[in-house]
Amino acid sequence: MAGVTIYQVAREAGVSPSTVSNFLNGRPERMLPQTRSRVAAAIDKLGYRPNRAARQLRTGQNQVIGLVVPSVANPFWGSFARMLERAALADGYRVLLCNSERDPERERGYLDELWADGIRGVVLCSSLPSLEHVLPLVDAGLSLVAFDRTAQAGDPAALVNISVDNVVGAHLATAHLLQLGHRRIAFVSGSLRSVNRRDRFRGFTQAFEEAELDPAGAVVWSGGAEQEPYGDLDAAELGRKAARELLAAPDRPTAIVAINDMCALGVSAGIRDAGLAVGGDVSVVGFDDIVLADLAAPPLTTVRQPIAEMAAAAFQHLRSRINAPETGPSQSLLMRPELVVRASTGPAPRE
Amino acid sequence: MAGVTIYQVAREAGVSPSTVSNFLNGRPERMLPQTRSRVAAAIDKLGYRPNRAARQLRTGQNQVIGLVVPSVANPFWGSFARMLERAALADGYRVLLCNSERDPERERGYLDELWADGIRGVVLCSSLPSLEHVLPLVDAGLSLVAFDRTAQAGDPAALVNISVDNVVGAHLATAHLLQLGHRRIAFVSGSLRSVNRRDRFRGFTQAFEEAELDPAGAVVWSGGAEQEPYGDLDAAELGRKAARELLAAPDRPTAIVAINDMCALGVSAGIRDAGLAVGGDVSVVGFDDIVLADLAAPPLTTVRQPIAEMAAAAFQHLRSRINAPETGPSQSLLMRPELVVRASTGPAPRE
Repeated sequence: MAGVTIYQVAREAGVSPSTVSNFLNGRPERMLPQTRSRVAAAIDKLGYRPNRAARQLRTGQNQVIGLVVPSVANPFWGSFARMLERAALADGYRVLLCNSERDPERERGYLDELWADGIRGVVLCSSLPSLEHVLPLVDAGLSLVAFDRTAQAGDPAALVNISVDNVVGAHLATAHLLQLGHRRIAFVSGSLRSVNRRDRFRGFTQAFEEAELDPAGAVVWSGGAEQEPYGDLDAAELGRKAARELLAAPDRPTAIVAINDMCALGVSAGIRDAGLAVGGDVSVVGFDDIVLADLAAPPLTTVRQPIAEMAAAAFQHLRSRINAPETGPSQSLLMRPELVVRASTGPAPRE
Repeated sequence: MAGVTIYQVAREAGVSPSTVSNFLNGRPERMLPQTRSRVAAAIDKLGYRPNRAARQLRTGQNQVIGLVVPSVANPFWGSFARMLERAALADGYRVLLCNSERDPERERGYLDELWADGIRGVVLCSSLPSLEHVLPLVDAGLSLVAFDRTAQAGDPAALVNISVDNVVGAHLATAHLLQLGHRRIAFVSGSLRSVNRRDRFRGFTQAFEEAELDPAGAVVWSGGAEQEPYGDLDAAELGRKAARELLAAPDRPTAIVAINDMCALGVSAGIRDAGLAVGGDVSVVGFDDIVLADLAAPPLTTVRQPIAEMAAAAFQHLRSRINAPETGPSQSLLMRPELVVRASTGPAPRE
């Protein structure tokens, strides 16, 4: 089967190899229907399977990279995928997208697929502290760009990490609330096992330390593991649940820092469920600045990631690594986030 | 390169073929680091590229299907991808996801990739009236399930169409508004060139005809082609723009049927931009019932698609077609939508 060539197919179909090539490369308008079916029949009979490498030589492109995200159910990842695809297509590359739900086994399974398909570069967004599960593929020559993650001890050599500065981002969000007079602030997140979330949590606590405020005012709500380990799939539900629980407590927070915008939109719904006003009774800050943040009522104060720039950088770094896998040592690229103040945050209500 | 076998790699590395197999199938913990690097070096030296078919025989799984959606920037497609993946993984299949933006050329490019990778089944969601651009691959043996699309003249044989009943769905939405006393209702959409949108538009006009109301009350706003042909990417922006324009007109509509929930969330923001109240001054109905519909303020009245059932059906039909490509003729599976009434719709305001 692997041995069958385009020439044997052409012979079998009684057409020229270039006709078979046209068929394979999607220029059916250049052939008669009966020719098309003769070629199709020959391909079926011989079990011909086009070879990527051969096709690349023929067409000079059809280059593909992989993108592994936690879950495209979060519009942030949908937008990131779109922007990475835009950067890739502009350069003749295509992007195949996989959801890992931050599950190392599933992630490894997808990477095995991509590797078996001859794909030699992947942007990995699950932000797991350990990349042990992908080391064999990296050893074998897979180029990796880790997104939304900073370098960790034990990372493979020649790994590129690209991320917004999550520590600074969460610090900006929390300092903004402290300046508004909030002293009891909750940090709402799924499991804090991923690097990006740990960094955001660090930024949250740093802001309290810097302001020399009672750390007891920094409340942490981190759950969702009952549904699935990281709470990615239902970040909005997670936020709504967190708000309900936090606001039912006797000494309830007057402001909430959510791990991302989807979570913040859920938190806002939970605040309304409790009969309270978002931005008035309880302030909310998100992270990402997805399209929906500005559409919400009230519009969501959030930490904007320079998503287009990060997607472009991720593609450029990955492409250069694919073309020269040995290029230089590991590096981390940290991009500066920006606080976008909207109506979901306001002064702390008087006691 | 294509000829290199796992046995040659084993010989080169001085290990057993099963060790190479462990390496390829991600069980690194079973081997010493130095063994791992010897195998990696041998793979590099010989340019060995694992063969999917061989790997399937070895591992008995790693089966993959393709999913082509208009844009994962729309959370509906993110959720659909998640559910299709869930159904597939439960059966040992993986899903590779592509964004086509309903562009036939890009779609064909991705299908060529998937086909070249030995993927023999794809769920196609772009709802284009013509499938001419994919016929050669269908002729060659690619199994297709078309989602969110009904059968069209000129479809290839053995095509399975799976969709919610878009005509009934839009009819339900519009009849709901008519019952609330609205007589001037706008239909807001990107280009009406796709099958699903044409069907939704038909349902909208049918509701007016059935109620024997002045069709002049049915206002159509269909745009977005300036950014990109279908307005998928920025459905929310599209809706916001539409609302601004429609509400600035002298004889403004009192209700708006949006092509999908993202568009409806944009419409709601546009209503607020105009200083009007959603559900009071202007009612809004969406389509899909994405998670965010219920989180919006006010929560969005919408037409729910049975997304989990449709995703499961799409996978099951595709799998059976892959295993027996000749099974039966084309068929269309239409699922019944459900109107979910929330606070974004209310009685028509008195003139």
